[in-house]
Amino acid sequence: MPTFVQIIEFIGTFAFAISGIRLASAKQFDWFGAYVVGLATAIGGGTIRDLLLGVTPFWMTTPVYIICSALALLWVIFFGKLLIRLHNTFFIFDSIGLALFTVVGVGKTLALGYPFWVAIIMGSITGAAGGVIRDVFINEIPLIFRKEIYAVACVAGGLIYWLSSLLELTPMLMQIFSGITVFIVRLLAVKYQICLPILKGHTE
Amino acid sequence: MPTFVQIIEFIGTFAFAISGIRLASAKQFDWFGAYVVGLATAIGGGTIRDLLLGVTPFWMTTPVYIICSALALLWVIFFGKLLIRLHNTFFIFDSIGLALFTVVGVGKTLALGYPFWVAIIMGSITGAAGGVIRDVFINEIPLIFRKEIYAVACVAGGLIYWLSSLLELTPMLMQIFSGITVFIVRLLAVKYQICLPILKGHTE
Amino acid sequence: MPTFVQIIEFIGTFAFAISGIRLASAKQFDWFGAYVVGLATAIGGGTIRDLLLGVTPFWMTTPVYIICSALALLWVIFFGKLLIRLHNTFFIFDSIGLALFTVVGVGKTLALGYPFWVAIIMGSITGAAGGVIRDVFINEIPLIFRKEIYAVACVAGGLIYWLSSLLELTPMLMQIFSGITVFIVRLLAVKYQICLPILKGHTE
Repeated sequence: MPTFVQIIEFIGTFAFAISGIRLASAKQFDWFGAYVVGLATAIGGGTIRDLLLGVTPFWMTTPVYIICSALALLWVIFFGKLLIRLHNTFFIFDSIGLALFTVVGVGKTLALGYPFWVAIIMGSITGAAGGVIRDVFINEIPLIFRKEIYAVACVAGGLIYWLSSLLELTPMLMQIFSGITVFIVRLLAVKYQICLPILKGHTE
Repeated sequence: MPTFVQIIEFIGTFAFAISGIRLASAKQFDWFGAYVVGLATAIGGGTIRDLLLGVTPFWMTTPVYIICSALALLWVIFFGKLLIRLHNTFFIFDSIGLALFTVVGVGKTLALGYPFWVAIIMGSITGAAGGVIRDVFINEIPLIFRKEIYAVACVAGGLIYWLSSLLELTPMLMQIFSGITVFIVRLLAVKYQICLPILKGHTE
Repeated sequence: MPTFVQIIEFIGTFAFAISGIRLASAKQFDWFGAYVVGLATAIGGGTIRDLLLGVTPFWMTTPVYIICSALALLWVIFFGKLLIRLHNTFFIFDSIGLALFTVVGVGKTLALGYPFWVAIIMGSITGAAGGVIRDVFINEIPLIFRKEIYAVACVAGGLIYWLSSLLELTPMLMQIFSGITVFIVRLLAVKYQICLPILKGHTE
């Protein structure tokens, strides 16, 4: 029986892979290319985190992420049109994935003995770097650098994790508060179209 | 005296570097830039593999790959025009390189105790990821995501490696069958212009 | 009290981050995106070096680089216009940073027991790879591959480091000669607009 966290992780991986595969399909990628982009979106952030932390990348110990991304490809191939109608569902899934990935990233970094400021960065990388790799692969400027409150939601979740630890809450509560923060910041940002200010350029 | 495998590896490295340098030259890169792109094409896949496996990148133990890529640059500078006529020769060299890189990648991963599914992924990364880095550097969508049967040939070779091991063949035979599979799949795909299906996009 | 080297390193990090943030601002990045690009420009080269060397990335042991890049963002937000007038000052800072980063990269690699040819490559990666990541993030062909004598200055500095060691100079002198070489090569290249030859393409 998979645990509750494993089920959420599967949903998050699936949603992340779908986002990569859909953007790849808009650029005429073939099935293999779309799969690689989906996989990179889903596992790219955690892979960079694990390389920086000096541990074996998480997806090399179980094939579940490889399989989950393959299921996401099949889903897009067979039910591609349905995705448009399910847009809101996938947005929720994606946000749940973002929240869980962030919490997992922060927790893993702390467990390795790093200070909190490193853990917050690693949580944000876990949640957001996959999307950056996706956008590099499809040759676009990364979305999260220009439009979306995405990584900022991860940073907020990481800060709440830290505050919860200062209050000496139990690890379980720290993770729940942190994850809910990521989820809510992301939802509110999209609902009310909140953006960060654009940096004005002063070119010579 | 270099061994047979070392000679093939040199030929493969040379062919991969040539492919990077030629694409860089089409984009007006200077000599240094072309060299870096050629080098990254040749050693990029193996470097990512070694980082994921947690071992020292292979090219840091002998300068032969650095030198081989420099020779490839000199070749393009002095005999650039000749390359067009030698197109088929270089295609063969490139496919030999792909086959050998894949086999080396699979073998190295198995030797470190990883399961076969990880080894097949690592073999494919060894063969194909250098080309992805090349295309990111020249700011194009990676070729292997849209047009070419390339990484799929690596996956096929990895699967044959695995099947050969199930049949308890000798390591030498496993590697030969695996390498020949990569080579033939790649050749047939190009000769008969076999492509994977394009993923249809359903945009909102 | 920070040491002399720490002060130079701070100036170099600041100048590198400024270069990333300015280019990001020209592409309408938001504050967060500009910060990430600035940070990646400043610490990207050293991070790749440390991953290749198999050691913990340098910036994960002290938050000074994260803070320094944040200060660079604030500087651009508040004094952006001033940057155009200070162009020459920042060019000097950037070149000082390049020199120091190269020397640090060469020294760290040698201290880990690698041969000089690896150290020269690592010095160049430390100095120049951050700019490559920056240009990938803003979706441009890396500047150093087409126009600028930049990484070549690092290579020259690395060679001088090596020559100084053959002459059995003290480590301090090796580093000073090496750093000055990087600085002067970069300055002369910009002042006299020296470029490497462009590689002519022979397309089919």
